[in-house]
Amino acid sequence: MSAACGVITLTTDFGHQGPFVGVMKGAVLARFPAARLIDLTHEILVHWPAEAGFWLARAYRYFPEGTVHVAVVDPGVGTARKIIAVEVGGHLFLAPDNGLLAPIVARDARARIRRLSPALLARLQIQRVSATFHGRDIFAPVAAELAAGRLEFDALGEPLTSLVPAWVEEPTVESRSVSGVIMTQDHFGNLITNIDGSLIERFRLPLVHAGNRAFPLHKTYGEVRPGEYLALVNSFGTIEIARAEGSAAEELGLSRGAPVVVRDRTDQP
Amino acid sequence: MSAACGVITLTTDFGHQGPFVGVMKGAVLARFPAARLIDLTHEILVHWPAEAGFWLARAYRYFPEGTVHVAVVDPGVGTARKIIAVEVGGHLFLAPDNGLLAPIVARDARARIRRLSPALLARLQIQRVSATFHGRDIFAPVAAELAAGRLEFDALGEPLTSLVPAWVEEPTVESRSVSGVIMTQDHFGNLITNIDGSLIERFRLPLVHAGNRAFPLHKTYGEVRPGEYLALVNSFGTIEIARAEGSAAEELGLSRGAPVVVRDRTDQP
Amino acid sequence: MSAACGVITLTTDFGHQGPFVGVMKGAVLARFPAARLIDLTHEILVHWPAEAGFWLARAYRYFPEGTVHVAVVDPGVGTARKIIAVEVGGHLFLAPDNGLLAPIVARDARARIRRLSPALLARLQIQRVSATFHGRDIFAPVAAELAAGRLEFDALGEPLTSLVPAWVEEPTVESRSVSGVIMTQDHFGNLITNIDGSLIERFRLPLVHAGNRAFPLHKTYGEVRPGEYLALVNSFGTIEIARAEGSAAEELGLSRGAPVVVRDRTDQP
Repeated sequence: MSAACGVITLTTDFGHQGPFVGVMKGAVLARFPAARLIDLTHEILVHWPAEAGFWLARAYRYFPEGTVHVAVVDPGVGTARKIIAVEVGGHLFLAPDNGLLAPIVARDARARIRRLSPALLARLQIQRVSATFHGRDIFAPVAAELAAGRLEFDALGEPLTSLVPAWVEEPTVESRSVSGVIMTQDHFGNLITNIDGSLIERFRLPLVHAGNRAFPLHKTYGEVRPGEYLALVNSFGTIEIARAEGSAAEELGLSRGAPVVVRDRTDQP
Repeated sequence: MSAACGVITLTTDFGHQGPFVGVMKGAVLARFPAARLIDLTHEILVHWPAEAGFWLARAYRYFPEGTVHVAVVDPGVGTARKIIAVEVGGHLFLAPDNGLLAPIVARDARARIRRLSPALLARLQIQRVSATFHGRDIFAPVAAELAAGRLEFDALGEPLTSLVPAWVEEPTVESRSVSGVIMTQDHFGNLITNIDGSLIERFRLPLVHAGNRAFPLHKTYGEVRPGEYLALVNSFGTIEIARAEGSAAEELGLSRGAPVVVRDRTDQP
Repeated sequence: MSAACGVITLTTDFGHQGPFVGVMKGAVLARFPAARLIDLTHEILVHWPAEAGFWLARAYRYFPEGTVHVAVVDPGVGTARKIIAVEVGGHLFLAPDNGLLAPIVARDARARIRRLSPALLARLQIQRVSATFHGRDIFAPVAAELAAGRLEFDALGEPLTSLVPAWVEEPTVESRSVSGVIMTQDHFGNLITNIDGSLIERFRLPLVHAGNRAFPLHKTYGEVRPGEYLALVNSFGTIEIARAEGSAAEELGLSRGAPVVVRDRTDQP
């Protein structure tokens, strides 16, 4: 494992109202004043860990090795759900065990998992844990200790070999088609699927089907005229349906969970 | 007073459009390059200092001692309203004197208050002060000097013994009930009241009444089924009305200012 | 040119959904761990570089000299559009050549322009550039190298003497009137024009006309009663139409692009 680099990313469904993200950062700084705190996003769809895991699995590599990634989408806060840590390629992840980190573990055989132990909290003098805000009361102080290099991954608790599974199944791959879903959309209204571009590399004439329409594959938005639709393999490597200088989400009326199929038209009449 | 720790928090009603928060940070960095700037929230209800004071009073303790907390919800900017500073338990606060800091002073008898003097601005070479953006032109440079440890609280200006009062009254406490209001809501639609849980500790069977409904008290959201309502003492210690995996605000149609009463049902027939 | 100060500002139309802004910051930190990253705004109107340039031209002076300002509003990403850098008064700017930086160049005769060369990317070992996210893949690493002081402005590529022009024309100045447009609005609903207050200093009785109404000029919002309209020269030096403790944008139904004329009524009957 890489040495800690002092960077902590935060991914939540807290939005920007109220002091929730801010006090998580305060709780980090109270233990580790030199932490560098980066917001990945706080606009995850409320109570949907799948979106957080989807993005985190594709975004973490852009941060320095030794980064601690904290993800709190946690409808079960205060119940018996576990808190887990994952280590992959020098990156550390902390999240509730609700499927959030499953895509990260699924994509890398090197992934190691540990469960945060109650003894750890006592050892770190983490006291007065509320029933409803573990982001501030547990995740922040543990992340601070990890990012400061004062706590090793292996000291977090017992190893686990399995996790709560992901909420969204991986795409179904057949000889002439790949089926997945729309996982999320961005601020531009681009519809982002869970179908990795690598799954359709073997297709000679891929066509992306969603909502009774079919979209040809292009390289970038500017290749079609403003207002026209297109599909592309986006900058995180997944298939995306877009509308040049417009919002595909708004115009097509599609959103999270909608099915998407990519078919190879090579030999069609 | 604690030594300055270099951390500055920002609380405003500026939202995220335009460069307003960003240039406040620029103005801090221009004087104190090592400042660590943390957004508490910029989504305070526009022109409502009460919400900023409510959150700040409950959030500041999670930051390191020596933090400077800047709060700019300032409909009277450029008029004769004062700018004040408060010191409590090693934390410093800067805000317009419009009731914003009243909850902080009310909750701690140790609080000391000073009024920013015009002479201070001259001494700090704060020039070209606009009529409409004191966040950038006064609050940011003063906070920078305080956070850098180059300016003492006692040097800010004359002591004050009173403030413009808070916009929202403290809850009314009677033998079998406590009456307050909804102060704010979070991104999940949880309705957050100004009734501290400590005020109802003596109740054996507290029931929270709002909008013609009554909500039983639970420990956390996951204790009821998705879609069911509940009340709880939240992670900042106040009574909150929530809907498990849903939005209480949206469904109940309640918002800021709505009355809430907690009654003890112990001896009811 | 000033030495690099380690500060990087980010201005985009990415909003806050998804990890887009976060991974730009990760890509900076991976090269320059000591970078101090400040969000100017990510709520630029989607695909409208003019608003980004408008704000950046008026905001950059509040940051320390040696700051690197990255602006990514880039509907042409991945097409043949250039990426350019501008140096003005010790500040560096990076943006697509789509008119975004034109207001900065227009306002300062000292401005120098260079075009990012393909050779630069090779020299900086910038590899695997996606077709759709140059913010992460090109702008972030180049900004990191500039902010770290490891790359000089003059080494970025060949000098340019002209740019793609601004999308919005400068105001038209006549003897008794100045005509411009609403460029943007803030979170309060204040309507912000591109007419600099300096253009009407010579008017003795300026009256601001927009949407069939006329607004007298005041110093600050609190000078009129709540609910009343006013115009003022705002804290960035441009004419703004506001409603005291209300939203001018919402009530007047005016928005970006609407014409505004300031007339001098001095000699009117």
